[in-house]
Amino acid sequence: MSGTPAVRSLGMYASVEHDGITDEVAVEEPLEIRVDGRPLAVTMRTPGHDEELAAGFLYGEGLIDAAPLEIGPSAELDANVVEVGGPLLRDPRERTFYTSSSCGVCGKGALEEVAVHSRPLPDGPVVERKLLAALPDRLGQPTFQRTGGLHATGLFDAGGAPLLSREDVGRHNAMDKVVGRRLLDRHLPLHDQVLCVSGRLSFELVQKAAVAGAPILVGVGAPSSLAISLAADRGLTLCGFARHGRLNVYSHAERVS
Amino acid sequence: MSGTPAVRSLGMYASVEHDGITDEVAVEEPLEIRVDGRPLAVTMRTPGHDEELAAGFLYGEGLIDAAPLEIGPSAELDANVVEVGGPLLRDPRERTFYTSSSCGVCGKGALEEVAVHSRPLPDGPVVERKLLAALPDRLGQPTFQRTGGLHATGLFDAGGAPLLSREDVGRHNAMDKVVGRRLLDRHLPLHDQVLCVSGRLSFELVQKAAVAGAPILVGVGAPSSLAISLAADRGLTLCGFARHGRLNVYSHAERVS
Repeated sequence: MSGTPAVRSLGMYASVEHDGITDEVAVEEPLEIRVDGRPLAVTMRTPGHDEELAAGFLYGEGLIDAAPLEIGPSAELDANVVEVGGPLLRDPRERTFYTSSSCGVCGKGALEEVAVHSRPLPDGPVVERKLLAALPDRLGQPTFQRTGGLHATGLFDAGGAPLLSREDVGRHNAMDKVVGRRLLDRHLPLHDQVLCVSGRLSFELVQKAAVAGAPILVGVGAPSSLAISLAADRGLTLCGFARHGRLNVYSHAERVS
Repeated sequence: MSGTPAVRSLGMYASVEHDGITDEVAVEEPLEIRVDGRPLAVTMRTPGHDEELAAGFLYGEGLIDAAPLEIGPSAELDANVVEVGGPLLRDPRERTFYTSSSCGVCGKGALEEVAVHSRPLPDGPVVERKLLAALPDRLGQPTFQRTGGLHATGLFDAGGAPLLSREDVGRHNAMDKVVGRRLLDRHLPLHDQVLCVSGRLSFELVQKAAVAGAPILVGVGAPSSLAISLAADRGLTLCGFARHGRLNVYSHAERVS
Protein backbone atom coordinates (compact mmCIF):
# COMPACT_ATOMS: atom_id res chain seq x y z
CA MET A 1 0.00 0.00 0.00
CA SER A 2 1.26 3.45 -0.85
CA GLY A 3 0.98 6.36 1.51
CA THR A 4 -1.58 7.92 -0.78
CA PRO A 5 -4.31 5.42 -1.57
CA ALA A 6 -6.48 5.84 -4.61
CA VAL A 7 -9.86 6.77 -3.27
CA ARG A 8 -12.10 6.60 -6.33
CA SER A 9 -15.51 8.13 -5.76
CA LEU A 10 -18.48 6.32 -7.24
CA GLY A 11 -21.22 8.60 -5.93
CA MET A 12 -22.30 7.75 -2.40
CA TYR A 13 -19.57 5.17 -1.98
CA ALA A 14 -15.93 5.08 -3.03
CA SER A 15 -13.56 2.32 -3.93
CA VAL A 16 -10.44 2.13 -1.76
CA GLU A 17 -7.41 -0.17 -1.45
CA HIS A 18 -6.39 -1.43 1.98
CA ASP A 19 -4.45 -4.43 3.23
CA GLY A 20 -4.05 -5.66 -0.33
CA ILE A 21 -7.75 -5.76 -1.14
CA THR A 22 -10.27 -3.46 -2.79
CA ASP A 23 -13.07 -2.28 -0.51
CA GLU A 24 -15.80 0.33 -0.41
CA VAL A 25 -16.21 3.28 1.94
CA ALA A 26 -18.85 5.98 2.29
CA VAL A 27 -18.09 9.22 0.48
CA GLU A 28 -17.72 12.37 2.61
CA GLU A 29 -17.30 15.71 0.83
CA PRO A 30 -17.94 19.33 1.80
CA LEU A 31 -21.08 21.04 0.54
CA GLU A 32 -21.30 24.80 0.55
CA ILE A 33 -24.79 26.28 0.84
CA ARG A 34 -25.10 29.75 -0.74
CA VAL A 35 -28.10 32.03 -0.36
CA ASP A 36 -28.43 34.80 -2.95
CA GLY A 37 -24.80 34.19 -3.88
CA ARG A 38 -23.50 34.56 -0.34
CA PRO A 39 -21.85 31.57 1.39
CA LEU A 40 -23.95 30.59 4.39
CA ALA A 41 -22.62 27.26 5.63
CA VAL A 42 -20.32 24.39 4.75
CA THR A 43 -21.31 20.91 5.84
CA MET A 44 -19.56 17.58 5.37
CA ARG A 45 -22.01 15.28 3.65
CA THR A 46 -22.39 12.28 1.37
CA PRO A 47 -23.08 13.58 -2.16
CA GLY A 48 -26.57 13.20 -3.59
CA HIS A 49 -29.85 14.90 -2.75
CA ASP A 50 -27.94 18.12 -2.14
CA GLU A 51 -30.94 20.37 -2.78
CA GLU A 52 -32.92 18.37 -0.21
CA LEU A 53 -30.09 18.76 2.29
CA ALA A 54 -29.88 22.52 1.74
CA ALA A 55 -33.66 22.98 1.95
CA GLY A 56 -33.99 20.76 5.03
CA PHE A 57 -31.09 22.49 6.75
CA LEU A 58 -32.52 25.97 6.18
CA TYR A 59 -35.97 24.83 7.31
CA GLY A 60 -34.68 23.15 10.45
CA GLU A 61 -32.79 26.31 11.39
CA GLY A 62 -35.93 28.41 11.02
CA LEU A 63 -34.43 30.35 8.11
CA ILE A 64 -37.20 29.38 5.63
CA ASP A 65 -40.74 28.09 6.13
CA ALA A 66 -41.56 27.12 2.54
CA ALA A 67 -39.75 25.62 -0.44
CA PRO A 68 -37.33 28.13 -2.02
CA LEU A 69 -38.39 29.34 -5.46
CA GLU A 70 -34.89 28.74 -6.74
CA ILE A 71 -32.59 25.96 -5.58
CA GLY A 72 -30.02 23.92 -7.46
CA PRO A 73 -26.37 23.14 -8.08
CA SER A 74 -24.16 26.10 -8.85
CA ALA A 75 -23.81 26.77 -12.56
CA GLU A 76 -20.48 28.54 -12.12
CA LEU A 77 -18.91 26.79 -9.17
CA ASP A 78 -18.20 23.12 -8.66
CA ALA A 79 -20.59 20.31 -7.87
CA ASN A 80 -20.16 20.80 -4.14
CA VAL A 81 -22.10 24.05 -4.04
CA VAL A 82 -25.89 24.50 -3.83
CA GLU A 83 -27.32 27.92 -4.67
CA VAL A 84 -30.56 28.94 -2.96
CA GLY A 85 -32.67 31.99 -3.81
CA GLY A 86 -33.76 34.02 -0.81
CA PRO A 87 -35.12 35.82 1.00
CA LEU A 88 -34.56 34.23 4.40
CA LEU A 89 -36.93 34.78 7.31
CA ARG A 90 -34.18 36.49 9.28
CA ASP A 91 -30.60 37.61 8.87
CA PRO A 92 -28.42 34.60 9.59
CA ARG A 93 -25.54 36.98 10.30
CA GLU A 94 -27.29 37.99 13.49
CA ARG A 95 -25.49 34.95 14.82
CA THR A 96 -21.93 35.40 13.84
CA PHE A 97 -20.05 33.43 16.45
CA TYR A 98 -17.31 31.16 15.35
CA THR A 99 -18.57 27.62 15.43
CA SER A 100 -17.69 24.04 14.71
CA SER A 101 -18.55 20.45 14.21
CA SER A 102 -19.89 17.88 16.55
CA CYS A 103 -22.17 20.46 17.93
CA GLY A 104 -25.88 20.56 17.38
CA VAL A 105 -26.45 24.20 18.04
CA CYS A 106 -23.53 26.07 16.60
CA GLY A 107 -23.93 29.66 15.63
CA LYS A 108 -26.53 30.31 18.27
CA GLY A 109 -25.82 33.47 20.18
CA ALA A 110 -26.66 32.39 23.69
CA LEU A 111 -27.76 29.33 25.57
CA GLU A 112 -31.36 30.49 25.71
CA GLU A 113 -31.39 30.67 21.93
CA VAL A 114 -30.55 27.02 21.54
CA ALA A 115 -34.03 25.85 20.64
CA VAL A 116 -35.65 26.79 17.33
CA HIS A 117 -39.35 27.61 17.55
CA SER A 118 -41.72 24.83 16.49
CA ARG A 119 -45.50 24.71 16.21
CA PRO A 120 -47.61 22.38 18.40
CA LEU A 121 -47.79 18.74 17.35
CA PRO A 122 -51.09 16.91 16.78
CA ASP A 123 -52.55 14.52 19.38
CA GLY A 124 -52.19 11.49 17.10
CA PRO A 125 -51.42 9.17 15.56
CA VAL A 126 -51.47 6.17 17.92
CA VAL A 127 -49.18 3.37 16.74
CA GLU A 128 -48.58 -0.14 18.06
CA ARG A 129 -45.37 -0.57 20.02
CA LYS A 130 -44.44 -3.67 18.03
CA LEU A 131 -44.80 -1.79 14.76
CA LEU A 132 -42.59 1.08 15.96
CA ALA A 133 -39.95 -1.38 17.12
CA ALA A 134 -39.87 -2.95 13.65
CA LEU A 135 -39.23 0.31 11.77
CA PRO A 136 -35.40 0.13 11.91
CA ASP A 137 -35.56 -3.10 9.89
CA ARG A 138 -37.42 -1.20 7.19
CA LEU A 139 -35.03 1.75 7.00
CA GLY A 140 -33.42 0.65 3.77
CA GLN A 141 -29.69 1.30 4.00
CA PRO A 142 -28.14 0.12 0.74
CA THR A 143 -24.96 2.17 1.08
CA PHE A 144 -24.56 1.33 4.77
CA GLN A 145 -24.63 -2.33 3.86
CA ARG A 146 -21.80 -1.73 1.40
CA THR A 147 -19.67 0.49 3.60
CA GLY A 148 -20.80 0.38 7.24
CA GLY A 149 -20.28 4.11 7.22
CA LEU A 150 -23.63 5.83 6.86
CA HIS A 151 -26.47 6.99 9.05
CA ALA A 152 -30.06 6.72 7.82
CA THR A 153 -33.33 8.49 8.45
CA GLY A 154 -36.63 6.99 7.27
CA LEU A 155 -40.12 8.44 7.08
CA PHE A 156 -43.07 6.08 7.57
CA ASP A 157 -46.83 6.44 7.59
CA ALA A 158 -48.75 5.55 10.74
CA GLY A 159 -49.25 2.02 9.39
CA GLY A 160 -45.49 1.50 9.13
CA ALA A 161 -45.26 1.77 5.33
CA PRO A 162 -41.97 3.36 4.23
CA LEU A 163 -42.42 6.69 2.44
CA LEU A 164 -38.86 7.93 2.05
CA SER A 165 -35.37 7.24 3.36
CA ARG A 166 -31.99 8.91 3.03
CA GLU A 167 -28.43 8.02 4.02
CA ASP A 168 -25.51 10.28 4.90
CA VAL A 169 -22.20 10.22 6.79
CA GLY A 170 -23.80 12.87 9.00
CA ARG A 171 -26.85 11.76 10.91
CA HIS A 172 -28.28 15.27 10.96
CA ASN A 173 -27.83 15.46 7.20
CA ALA A 174 -29.88 12.30 6.64
CA MET A 175 -32.71 13.91 8.64
CA ASP A 176 -32.32 17.21 6.75
CA LYS A 177 -32.56 15.37 3.41
CA VAL A 178 -35.82 13.66 4.38
CA VAL A 179 -37.37 16.87 5.70
CA GLY A 180 -36.02 18.81 2.71
CA ARG A 181 -37.59 16.38 0.24
CA ARG A 182 -40.98 16.77 1.91
CA LEU A 183 -40.57 20.54 1.98
CA LEU A 184 -39.73 20.66 -1.74
CA ASP A 185 -42.77 18.45 -2.42
CA ARG A 186 -45.00 20.71 -0.26
CA HIS A 187 -45.69 17.80 2.07
CA LEU A 188 -44.90 19.39 5.41
CA PRO A 189 -45.78 19.19 8.27
CA LEU A 190 -45.28 15.45 8.89
CA HIS A 191 -48.32 15.33 11.18
CA ASP A 192 -49.51 11.77 10.58
CA GLN A 193 -46.08 10.27 10.08
CA VAL A 194 -43.22 8.69 12.01
CA LEU A 195 -39.49 9.41 11.69
CA CYS A 196 -36.92 6.70 12.41
CA VAL A 197 -33.15 7.18 12.70
CA SER A 198 -30.40 4.57 12.63
CA GLY A 199 -28.37 6.04 15.48
CA ARG A 200 -28.59 7.87 18.77
CA LEU A 201 -31.17 10.49 19.65
CA SER A 202 -29.66 13.91 20.27
CA PHE A 203 -31.28 17.21 21.16
CA GLU A 204 -30.70 18.35 17.59
CA LEU A 205 -32.53 15.41 15.98
CA VAL A 206 -35.53 15.89 18.27
CA GLN A 207 -35.57 19.57 17.37
CA LYS A 208 -35.48 18.86 13.62
CA ALA A 209 -38.32 16.34 13.97
CA ALA A 210 -40.42 18.75 16.03
CA VAL A 211 -39.87 21.64 13.60
CA ALA A 212 -40.97 19.35 10.74
CA GLY A 213 -44.10 18.48 12.70
CA ALA A 214 -43.40 14.75 13.20
CA PRO A 215 -45.24 13.53 16.33
CA ILE A 216 -43.17 10.35 16.79
CA LEU A 217 -39.39 9.85 16.56
CA VAL A 218 -37.85 6.38 16.86
CA GLY A 219 -34.12 5.71 17.19
CA VAL A 220 -32.02 2.57 17.22
CA GLY A 221 -29.66 4.14 19.76
CA ALA A 222 -29.80 5.83 23.13
CA PRO A 223 -31.40 9.21 23.79
CA SER A 224 -29.60 12.01 25.61
CA SER A 225 -31.09 13.76 28.62
CA LEU A 226 -31.76 16.93 26.64
CA ALA A 227 -33.38 14.99 23.79
CA ILE A 228 -35.89 13.59 26.29
CA SER A 229 -36.50 16.98 27.92
CA LEU A 230 -37.09 18.70 24.59
CA ALA A 231 -39.38 15.90 23.33
CA ALA A 232 -41.42 16.10 26.53
CA ASP A 233 -41.67 19.88 26.22
CA ARG A 234 -42.66 19.84 22.55
CA GLY A 235 -45.22 17.05 22.88
CA LEU A 236 -43.19 14.59 20.82
CA THR A 237 -43.19 10.83 21.44
CA LEU A 238 -39.55 9.78 21.73
CA CYS A 239 -38.63 6.08 21.43
CA GLY A 240 -35.08 4.74 21.77
CA PHE A 241 -33.16 1.46 21.69
CA ALA A 242 -35.49 0.12 18.99
CA ARG A 243 -33.88 -3.29 18.54
CA HIS A 244 -34.85 -6.94 18.49
CA GLY A 245 -38.55 -6.11 18.39
CA ARG A 246 -38.43 -3.91 21.51
CA LEU A 247 -38.06 -0.24 22.36
CA ASN A 248 -38.22 2.24 25.23
CA VAL A 249 -40.73 5.11 25.25
CA TYR A 250 -39.27 8.20 26.96
CA SER A 251 -41.99 10.82 26.44
CA HIS A 252 -45.65 11.16 25.46
CA ALA A 253 -46.41 7.45 25.56
CA GLU A 254 -50.06 8.24 24.78
CA ARG A 255 -49.25 7.72 21.10
CA VAL A 256 -47.98 4.16 21.71
CA SER A 257 -50.55 1.37 22.08
CA MET B 1 -45.80 8.16 32.54
CA SER B 2 -46.42 11.87 32.34
CA GLY B 3 -45.72 13.91 29.26
CA THR B 4 -42.91 15.63 31.09
CA PRO B 5 -40.59 13.04 32.59
CA ALA B 6 -38.34 13.94 35.44
CA VAL B 7 -34.85 13.94 33.99
CA ARG B 8 -32.61 14.27 37.02
CA SER B 9 -29.02 15.04 36.14
CA LEU B 10 -26.35 13.25 38.15
CA GLY B 11 -23.30 14.64 36.32
CA MET B 12 -22.44 12.71 33.17
CA TYR B 13 -25.56 10.58 33.39
CA ALA B 14 -29.13 11.33 34.34
CA SER B 15 -31.89 9.31 35.91
CA VAL B 16 -35.05 9.02 33.81
CA GLU B 17 -38.39 7.23 34.05
CA HIS B 18 -39.68 5.27 31.07
CA ASP B 19 -42.11 2.40 30.63
CA GLY B 20 -42.60 2.27 34.39
CA ILE B 21 -38.96 1.79 35.27
CA THR B 22 -36.06 4.03 36.28
CA ASP B 23 -33.17 4.09 33.84
CA GLU B 24 -30.06 6.13 33.09
CA VAL B 25 -29.23 8.23 30.05
CA ALA B 26 -26.22 10.30 29.05
CA VAL B 27 -26.42 13.99 29.88
CA GLU B 28 -26.34 16.46 26.98
CA GLU B 29 -26.18 20.17 27.78
CA PRO B 30 -25.00 23.24 25.88
CA LEU B 31 -21.62 24.72 26.70
CA GLU B 32 -20.80 28.26 25.68
CA ILE B 33 -17.13 29.05 25.10
CA ARG B 34 -16.24 32.70 25.70
CA VAL B 35 -12.93 34.31 24.80
CA ASP B 36 -12.12 37.60 26.54
CA GLY B 37 -15.76 37.85 27.52
CA ARG B 38 -17.08 37.45 24.00
CA PRO B 39 -19.21 34.39 23.09
CA LEU B 40 -17.35 32.32 20.51
CA ALA B 41 -19.22 29.02 20.16
CA VAL B 42 -21.92 26.88 21.71
CA THR B 43 -21.51 23.13 21.64
CA MET B 44 -23.75 20.37 22.95
CA ARG B 45 -21.67 18.27 25.29
CA THR B 46 -21.71 15.97 28.30
CA PRO B 47 -20.76 18.06 31.37
CA GLY B 48 -17.36 17.54 32.93
CA HIS B 49 -13.87 18.41 31.74
CA ASP B 50 -15.25 21.61 30.22
CA GLU B 51 -11.92 23.46 30.30
CA GLU B 52 -10.34 20.56 28.42
CA LEU B 53 -13.10 20.68 25.85
CA ALA B 54 -12.71 24.43 25.35
CA ALA B 55 -8.91 24.21 25.11
CA GLY B 56 -8.99 21.24 22.75
CA PHE B 57 -11.62 22.86 20.57
CA LEU B 58 -9.65 26.10 20.21
CA TYR B 59 -6.45 24.17 19.52
CA GLY B 60 -8.06 21.93 16.91
CA GLU B 61 -9.43 24.97 15.11
CA GLY B 62 -6.00 26.58 14.97
CA LEU B 63 -7.10 29.44 17.22
CA ILE B 64 -4.49 28.75 19.93
CA ASP B 65 -1.21 26.83 19.89
CA ALA B 66 -0.48 26.75 23.62
CA ALA B 67 -2.43 26.42 26.84
CA PRO B 68 -4.39 29.61 27.64
CA LEU B 69 -3.09 31.51 30.67
CA GLU B 70 -6.62 31.86 31.97
CA ILE B 71 -9.36 29.27 31.53
CA GLY B 72 -12.18 28.23 33.82
CA PRO B 73 -15.89 28.24 34.55
CA SER B 74 -17.59 31.60 34.46
CA ALA B 75 -17.75 33.28 37.85
CA GLU B 76 -20.77 35.37 36.88
CA LEU B 77 -22.65 33.15 34.47
CA ASP B 78 -23.95 29.63 34.95
CA ALA B 79 -22.03 26.39 34.99
CA ASN B 80 -22.46 25.90 31.26
CA VAL B 81 -20.03 28.68 30.32
CA VAL B 82 -16.22 28.44 30.08
CA GLU B 83 -14.25 31.69 30.01
CA VAL B 84 -10.92 31.71 28.17
CA GLY B 85 -8.35 34.48 28.22
CA GLY B 86 -7.02 35.45 24.80
CA PRO B 87 -5.42 36.45 22.61
CA LEU B 88 -6.28 34.10 19.76
CA LEU B 89 -3.92 33.49 16.86
CA ARG B 90 -6.39 35.01 14.43
CA ASP B 91 -9.72 36.76 14.45
CA PRO B 92 -12.38 34.05 14.50
CA ARG B 93 -14.86 36.57 13.12
CA GLU B 94 -13.05 36.36 9.82
CA ARG B 95 -15.31 33.41 9.32
CA THR B 96 -18.76 34.65 10.09
CA PHE B 97 -20.94 32.33 8.04
CA TYR B 98 -23.97 30.86 9.63
CA THR B 99 -23.27 27.26 10.47
CA SER B 100 -24.68 24.20 12.11
CA SER B 101 -24.39 20.81 13.60
CA SER B 102 -23.55 17.51 12.05
CA CYS B 103 -20.95 19.24 10.05
CA GLY B 104 -17.24 18.90 10.67
CA VAL B 105 -16.11 22.10 9.10
CA CYS B 106 -18.70 24.71 9.86
CA GLY B 107 -17.70 28.33 9.85
CA LYS B 108 -15.10 27.84 7.17
CA GLY B 109 -15.39 30.43 4.47
CA ALA B 110 -14.73 28.34 1.42
CA LEU B 111 -14.17 24.73 0.50
CA GLU B 112 -10.44 25.24 0.13
CA GLU B 113 -10.31 26.45 3.71
CA VAL B 114 -11.72 23.22 5.05
CA ALA B 115 -8.46 21.83 6.35
CA VAL B 116 -6.67 23.37 9.32
CA HIS B 117 -2.90 23.52 9.00
CA SER B 118 -0.98 20.79 10.81
CA ARG B 119 2.72 20.16 11.23
CA PRO B 120 4.42 17.03 9.78
CA LEU B 121 4.03 13.81 11.77
CA PRO B 122 7.02 11.71 12.88
CA ASP B 123 8.03 8.52 11.07
CA GLY B 124 7.24 6.31 14.06
CA PRO B 125 6.14 4.63 16.14
CA VAL B 126 5.68 1.14 14.68
CA VAL B 127 3.00 -0.85 16.51
CA GLU B 128 1.81 -4.43 16.17
CA ARG B 129 -1.46 -4.86 14.33
CA LYS B 130 -2.82 -7.12 17.06
CA LEU B 131 -2.10 -4.51 19.71
CA LEU B 132 -3.86 -1.76 17.73
CA ALA B 133 -6.88 -4.00 17.22
CA ALA B 134 -7.12 -4.55 20.98
CA LEU B 135 -7.21 -0.84 21.90
CA PRO B 136 -11.02 -0.44 21.73
CA ASP B 137 -11.33 -3.00 24.53
CA ARG B 138 -9.13 -0.76 26.67
CA LEU B 139 -11.02 2.48 26.02
CA GLY B 140 -12.72 2.55 29.39
CA GLN B 141 -16.29 3.68 28.90
CA PRO B 142 -17.95 3.66 32.31
CA THR B 143 -20.77 6.03 31.35
CA PHE B 144 -21.37 4.30 28.02
CA GLN B 145 -21.85 1.07 29.89
CA ARG B 146 -24.50 2.75 32.03
CA THR B 147 -26.31 4.60 29.27
CA GLY B 148 -25.28 3.32 25.82
CA GLY B 149 -25.21 6.97 24.84
CA LEU B 150 -21.62 8.18 24.79
CA HIS B 151 -18.69 8.25 22.43
CA ALA B 152 -15.17 7.75 23.78
CA THR B 153 -11.65 8.76 22.77
CA GLY B 154 -8.63 7.13 24.36
CA LEU B 155 -4.95 8.01 24.26
CA PHE B 156 -2.41 5.18 24.47
CA ASP B 157 1.35 4.93 24.44
CA ALA B 158 3.04 2.92 21.69
CA GLY B 159 3.01 -0.14 23.94
CA GLY B 160 -0.78 0.03 24.27
CA ALA B 161 -0.86 1.34 27.83
CA PRO B 162 -3.86 3.67 28.39
CA LEU B 163 -2.85 7.25 29.24
CA LEU B 164 -6.16 9.08 29.20
CA SER B 165 -9.75 8.62 28.05
CA ARG B 166 -12.81 10.83 27.84
CA GLU B 167 -16.48 10.27 27.04
CA ASP B 168 -19.03 12.63 25.52
CA VAL B 169 -22.34 12.60 23.64
CA GLY B 170 -20.39 14.25 20.82
CA ARG B 171 -17.58 12.19 19.36
CA HIS B 172 -15.63 15.31 18.40
CA ASN B 173 -15.96 16.57 21.95
CA ALA B 174 -14.43 13.40 23.39
CA MET B 175 -11.42 13.95 21.11
CA ASP B 176 -11.25 17.65 22.02
CA LYS B 177 -11.24 16.77 25.73
CA VAL B 178 -8.31 14.37 25.33
CA VAL B 179 -6.29 16.82 23.23
CA GLY B 180 -7.26 19.68 25.55
CA ARG B 181 -6.05 17.78 28.63
CA ARG B 182 -2.67 17.19 27.00
CA LEU B 183 -2.49 20.81 25.91
CA LEU B 184 -3.23 22.07 29.43
CA ASP B 185 -0.56 19.68 30.75
CA ARG B 186 1.95 20.90 28.12
CA HIS B 187 2.15 17.38 26.66
CA LEU B 188 1.54 18.12 23.00
CA PRO B 189 2.31 17.01 20.32
CA LEU B 190 1.22 13.37 20.74
CA HIS B 191 4.14 12.16 18.63
CA ASP B 192 4.78 8.75 20.18
CA GLN B 193 1.15 8.01 21.00
CA VAL B 194 -1.94 6.42 19.50
CA LEU B 195 -5.50 7.78 19.54
CA CYS B 196 -8.48 5.42 19.51
CA VAL B 197 -12.14 6.39 19.03
CA SER B 198 -15.26 4.35 19.73
CA GLY B 199 -17.10 5.30 16.54
CA ARG B 200 -16.67 6.11 12.90
CA LEU B 201 -13.72 7.94 11.38
CA SER B 202 -14.69 11.27 9.84
CA PHE B 203 -12.59 13.91 8.14
CA GLU B 204 -12.91 16.05 11.25
CA LEU B 205 -11.52 13.41 13.63
CA VAL B 206 -8.53 12.77 11.37
CA GLN B 207 -7.89 16.51 11.25
CA LYS B 208 -8.02 16.87 15.02
CA ALA B 209 -5.62 13.92 15.44
CA ALA B 210 -3.21 15.34 12.85
CA VAL B 211 -3.23 18.81 14.40
CA ALA B 212 -2.47 17.25 17.80
CA GLY B 213 0.46 15.39 16.22
CA ALA B 214 -0.83 11.84 16.73
CA PRO B 215 0.70 9.55 14.08
CA ILE B 216 -1.84 6.71 14.45
CA LEU B 217 -5.64 6.90 14.73
CA VAL B 218 -7.72 3.76 15.34
CA GLY B 219 -11.51 3.62 15.11
CA VAL B 220 -14.08 0.95 15.89
CA GLY B 221 -16.23 2.11 12.97
CA ALA B 222 -15.90 2.79 9.26
CA PRO B 223 -13.79 5.57 7.75
CA SER B 224 -15.16 8.02 5.21
CA SER B 225 -13.49 8.63 1.87
CA LEU B 226 -12.27 12.07 2.94
CA ALA B 227 -10.93 10.76 6.24
CA ILE B 228 -8.72 8.36 4.27
CA SER B 229 -7.61 11.04 1.80
CA LEU B 230 -6.69 13.48 4.56
CA ALA B 231 -4.85 10.80 6.57
CA ALA B 232 -2.86 9.83 3.47
CA ASP B 233 -2.02 13.46 2.78
CA ARG B 234 -0.98 14.25 6.35
CA GLY B 235 1.11 11.12 6.82
CA LEU B 236 -1.24 9.65 9.43
CA THR B 237 -1.84 5.92 9.85
CA LEU B 238 -5.61 5.40 9.76
CA CYS B 239 -7.09 2.12 11.03
CA GLY B 240 -10.82 1.31 10.97
CA PHE B 241 -13.24 -1.48 11.91
CA ALA B 242 -11.09 -2.39 14.92
CA ARG B 243 -13.20 -5.26 16.26
CA HIS B 244 -12.83 -8.85 17.30
CA GLY B 245 -9.04 -8.65 17.23
CA ARG B 246 -8.86 -7.38 13.65
CA LEU B 247 -8.69 -4.05 11.84
CA ASN B 248 -8.19 -2.51 8.41
CA VAL B 249 -5.26 -0.17 7.65
CA TYR B 250 -6.25 2.53 5.15
CA SER B 251 -3.14 4.73 5.00
CA HIS B 252 0.54 4.75 5.96
CA ALA B 253 0.72 1.07 6.85
CA GLU B 254 4.46 1.47 7.48
CA ARG B 255 3.65 2.10 11.15
CA VAL B 256 1.82 -1.24 11.48
CA SER B 257 3.92 -4.38 11.94
